[in-house]
Amino acid sequence: MFDPRVEEHAKIVVNHSCKIKKDDFVVIMGCPEARDLTIQIVKELGRVGADYVVLDNESAVFRAFLLASNDDAIKLSKQVLNLFKDSDVLINLSQATTSNSHELSDVPPHKLQLWRTAMNPISEVIMTKRWNITLQPTSALAQDANMSFEAYSDFVYSAVIRDWQKMESEMKVLSEKMQTADQVRILGKETDISMSVKGRKPIIDSGEKNLPGGEVFTSPIDASVNGRVYFDLPIIFMGYEVSGCRLVFKDGVVVESSAEQGSEILKEMLAIDDGAKRVGELGIGMNRGIDRFTRNILFDEKMGDTIHMAVGLSFEEAGGTNKSAIHIDMLKSMKDGGAIYFDSERIYEHSRFAWER
Amino acid sequence: MFDPRVEEHAKIVVNHSCKIKKDDFVVIMGCPEARDLTIQIVKELGRVGADYVVLDNESAVFRAFLLASNDDAIKLSKQVLNLFKDSDVLINLSQATTSNSHELSDVPPHKLQLWRTAMNPISEVIMTKRWNITLQPTSALAQDANMSFEAYSDFVYSAVIRDWQKMESEMKVLSEKMQTADQVRILGKETDISMSVKGRKPIIDSGEKNLPGGEVFTSPIDASVNGRVYFDLPIIFMGYEVSGCRLVFKDGVVVESSAEQGSEILKEMLAIDDGAKRVGELGIGMNRGIDRFTRNILFDEKMGDTIHMAVGLSFEEAGGTNKSAIHIDMLKSMKDGGAIYFDSERIYEHSRFAWER
Repeated sequence: MFDPRVEEHAKIVVNHSCKIKKDDFVVIMGCPEARDLTIQIVKELGRVGADYVVLDNESAVFRAFLLASNDDAIKLSKQVLNLFKDSDVLINLSQATTSNSHELSDVPPHKLQLWRTAMNPISEVIMTKRWNITLQPTSALAQDANMSFEAYSDFVYSAVIRDWQKMESEMKVLSEKMQTADQVRILGKETDISMSVKGRKPIIDSGEKNLPGGEVFTSPIDASVNGRVYFDLPIIFMGYEVSGCRLVFKDGVVVESSAEQGSEILKEMLAIDDGAKRVGELGIGMNRGIDRFTRNILFDEKMGDTIHMAVGLSFEEAGGTNKSAIHIDMLKSMKDGGAIYFDSERIYEHSRFAWER
Repeated sequence: MFDPRVEEHAKIVVNHSCKIKKDDFVVIMGCPEARDLTIQIVKELGRVGADYVVLDNESAVFRAFLLASNDDAIKLSKQVLNLFKDSDVLINLSQATTSNSHELSDVPPHKLQLWRTAMNPISEVIMTKRWNITLQPTSALAQDANMSFEAYSDFVYSAVIRDWQKMESEMKVLSEKMQTADQVRILGKETDISMSVKGRKPIIDSGEKNLPGGEVFTSPIDASVNGRVYFDLPIIFMGYEVSGCRLVFKDGVVVESSAEQGSEILKEMLAIDDGAKRVGELGIGMNRGIDRFTRNILFDEKMGDTIHMAVGLSFEEAGGTNKSAIHIDMLKSMKDGGAIYFDSERIYEHSRFAWER
């Protein structure tokens, strides 16, 4: 049954997120599960006068290819790369929309790695274009979120169909305050951690590259991180799950770590390289349409009343300098007595930002 | 439920029809309904070491685009044309595989015409490559054939999964006999028609460009056609259906026409232009896996124990010279006392070819 909210979603993707105009050439990375959203996006492209091609990037298809291929056949064709180079806008529906989030679980890891490496030039090309990642609700995604399909669809559209102008202006207030701040301090359950963001650039995610958007994030000065933090929400990384993670930082480096579940995996993650023990990102979730954890980072990291820190790779565009092969987001709910200070200003407390009091 | 015959079908497409080899770049024109076949084709491409991209050409998607677009936005993008130009092989699953054969019925005809005209350069490029059209069974196709999905699937695979080498050698016998013949005479119920094929080239369809294949066809010398013919199988053209069509030819031109149903439409067809009243093709169906009419020309024209003639455009590669904006295939069952003569040789009678007796 067609959900009429798909049409609203598509208009946001085309007009707000990607700002598509007449004669733009749009590559849509689609899959059968994203069919309704694809149709509505293409309809909107027709209205705008843009041209398009839809690629079918379903994971079951490239799983079949990877399983059957010799390693040396796993390469990027120049034809596909050229298609991306010659485009103006990329809309990626297939990465986040899935009929089975474990569809690639029986592909040998080295083949997946070869494939990811081979596709790198496409990612680099996409970064130079207008692009957006979003999803159409599926039963598989609802299942990962422990939700019914109907409830999950309501959840997705309450996160996606928002007044993005209004959200952007709120996020601007926060980012301007962060821009002029030196010390950020986060207080909460078993948490008291400080870091400097002096000279770093706060970035607003207002539903352009990610839909839903709704976070302000930066890469703090990693050597300045001191204190302890309790991440009460599960950490999902490469199919692994770590929950109840506690970290203690001294001068930017993790000196103590524990987890209620998956502590061995946590230790392995932190030991991958030097940068994996340092902070690459501090983000503040601001999308109150996202009111629960759904095991999907596209949504989780924008959840209202949460902060997240990532260990590993920092963002160059934010001025970050930490290098690592990994970037693992770790989320903390702030509902349970959490507070955020920018220098001496209490920017967030009791589930309200300063301008909401 | 996955049908294991899909894997055999895919191997025939990749290895027999398209002769795909290592490092070929293959464009698959797919759609959600052809998902199983797409996956198996891509698996076989992996084995062979070819590279690929899957386009989603579902008719519901471009219906949405056509309905929303201004006429001047209905154009071919150079990016898509380049993708086809830079390919080695095209596999078209979306043209014949459908979830609804009337999906485009509410698109204004002039928009469909603009779209077809805009896509012409792609068709021209494809003609210079290795290419194949085939389909995955769907409930919609079964419905058009008045069949259950299970029975229709059995029908499709009995037509597609054949010993194509053996069929090719049989078709070669027929085509060699046709090559040296002057007069072809077809006898049957209310039928006695003759035409010259002298100097024209018989073409064998052995499952390469079309799968199923299974016909030998040519373009006769159109001015030489004389006699009367009764096409007892329905004629399907642009969504119209004409049944029980009777034509009388004199020196190549239709001089009398009638139909049991749709006689007005038949008259309109024949009046489209001068070439529409002349014969563009004579074909002899030789695929005995196709034992019934299913309202799908990809199958119908190869049906065993049938012949077909088309009025309108002839085939240049067969030496044909008749020009027309149309090419309408008309089928006749030969089971009911039909016979074919090449000059004085009785090439077919009592449902058997000469070499089968």
